[in-house]
Amino acid sequence: MTTVERGGEEAEAILDALFPKVGHAYRIGITGSTGAGKSSIVNQLTGCFRSMDQSVGVVAEDPTSPFSGGALLGDRVRMERAVGDDGVFVRSIASRGNETGFSPLASEIADILDAFGRDVILLETIGVGQLEHRIRFAADTIAVVLTPEAGDDVQSLKSGLMEVGDIFVVNKADRPDAGRFAEDVRSMIEIRFRQHDWTPTVVETVATIENGVRDLHEAIASHHDYLQQDGRLEAQRREGLRSRLRAVTSQKINGALWENPYIVGRFDAIFEELISGGCSLYAASARLAQSIKMGE
Amino acid sequence: MTTVERGGEEAEAILDALFPKVGHAYRIGITGSTGAGKSSIVNQLTGCFRSMDQSVGVVAEDPTSPFSGGALLGDRVRMERAVGDDGVFVRSIASRGNETGFSPLASEIADILDAFGRDVILLETIGVGQLEHRIRFAADTIAVVLTPEAGDDVQSLKSGLMEVGDIFVVNKADRPDAGRFAEDVRSMIEIRFRQHDWTPTVVETVATIENGVRDLHEAIASHHDYLQQDGRLEAQRREGLRSRLRAVTSQKINGALWENPYIVGRFDAIFEELISGGCSLYAASARLAQSIKMGE
Repeated sequence: MTTVERGGEEAEAILDALFPKVGHAYRIGITGSTGAGKSSIVNQLTGCFRSMDQSVGVVAEDPTSPFSGGALLGDRVRMERAVGDDGVFVRSIASRGNETGFSPLASEIADILDAFGRDVILLETIGVGQLEHRIRFAADTIAVVLTPEAGDDVQSLKSGLMEVGDIFVVNKADRPDAGRFAEDVRSMIEIRFRQHDWTPTVVETVATIENGVRDLHEAIASHHDYLQQDGRLEAQRREGLRSRLRAVTSQKINGALWENPYIVGRFDAIFEELISGGCSLYAASARLAQSIKMGE
Repeated sequence: MTTVERGGEEAEAILDALFPKVGHAYRIGITGSTGAGKSSIVNQLTGCFRSMDQSVGVVAEDPTSPFSGGALLGDRVRMERAVGDDGVFVRSIASRGNETGFSPLASEIADILDAFGRDVILLETIGVGQLEHRIRFAADTIAVVLTPEAGDDVQSLKSGLMEVGDIFVVNKADRPDAGRFAEDVRSMIEIRFRQHDWTPTVVETVATIENGVRDLHEAIASHHDYLQQDGRLEAQRREGLRSRLRAVTSQKINGALWENPYIVGRFDAIFEELISGGCSLYAASARLAQSIKMGE
């Protein structure tokens, strides 16, 4: 795993070797804002799955800096369910400095856990700005965790998050106004998903005291059942793989681009022209883009 | 501006035509978490600059969805300082669906405001996950807005944000523990920036009642003075332009890639192999990457 985290050719060789063994595990994404209670929910869900004798892998993504390259929190010690249980494996990851929100590395770590036989993989990630849709391709079922904060109404929810959820968890459901908030979420979902085959379930939880987490477990099972009909799970995973191949290829080409001596030389020359006022930004980039030949 | 927001060739032609006129305005980035009070600070700062008879442009970035393509909040009406004052222009922007955190579009809108003679441009943006460093290249001075929340200590600050700040604003400085929090921020900065020429200033504000905003204005002026020595401002803007040219070129090439019939055909063929188990993910992407020729 450490090798895969470092990236590079060795990492790719390991992942390619494991590739034929990937696909057994069911992947569940838990996403939402910082402080929404994602970690508590992951912890409780882990308990649920363990009580049914399923092995669990957890991949948790922390905010990191592309400058320092390190995760701020490091491996988490608060996963009480994981302590002393061989059936639970937890990994916190730092990003390799790419800018993709939900890191491809998280999917790679999930692949390893999958290849080594975990039944369930929980992917915990922060829903950030424009990047929520990344997780859509990384998990089979996505649970979006919301909390009824003072003054918040459903209109203020980030629309990106609304669009990726298969299940919506109203956590901290013991707060005043939580019931009304949950109702608002339900109404919004009814309108938004009217034309869809699957209408997202809304589950109310108080994850710190285990309330509702069994309901969440059932909602996940229902969505799993739904996906298993009519080849939906297969089709969804196929789209996920297509999206990953595209992303990995784009990244590989972009990396190769800026290491290519001819391109770097062209870049420096055109950049000097740009600085001296000899051309403008988009004209310069168009000329650079023309240095690339696509095709046979 | 609407044309530029739509993107495409027409937008690039406009931006290229304006390019020679860009560079007069001083750009100030205001970044930090949702709810830190960035908008209030932008509003108060606008008042400061207007009282010194400088024209102000504001570019505010909202969380958007790549699915809906629309900003959730739309243009803001809460910039009281802007109402009825021709010297202030405010624009909220939605992203074009790219995944770069601080949108290139924000810099493009800033370019337009700059070309049309604004003296000062305030760029308000949310500091998200791994993407804070984007703003480093978009503004001359970066102010990171922090708030002393209950239980937060400086260790929990996102390290990416710490590394881009020229000025740190401890907003809501009237809260209990704010003084201690500001001291902690000062100590951390002293350690972190010991080897640097510029040690970031820490300013305490209560933006809702104008406290400290004049101090912030002075801190910005000091940093501006610092940058004007030894060609620092020019060098920094040069690096910013280099980074923009690189980003725009990468985006252009990536876009062209997935519209190229030969590449799309190769992709489909290799993807079918991947699905049928004939090759693995990285091997597939390596073969695709080889379809691209760089060089003469």
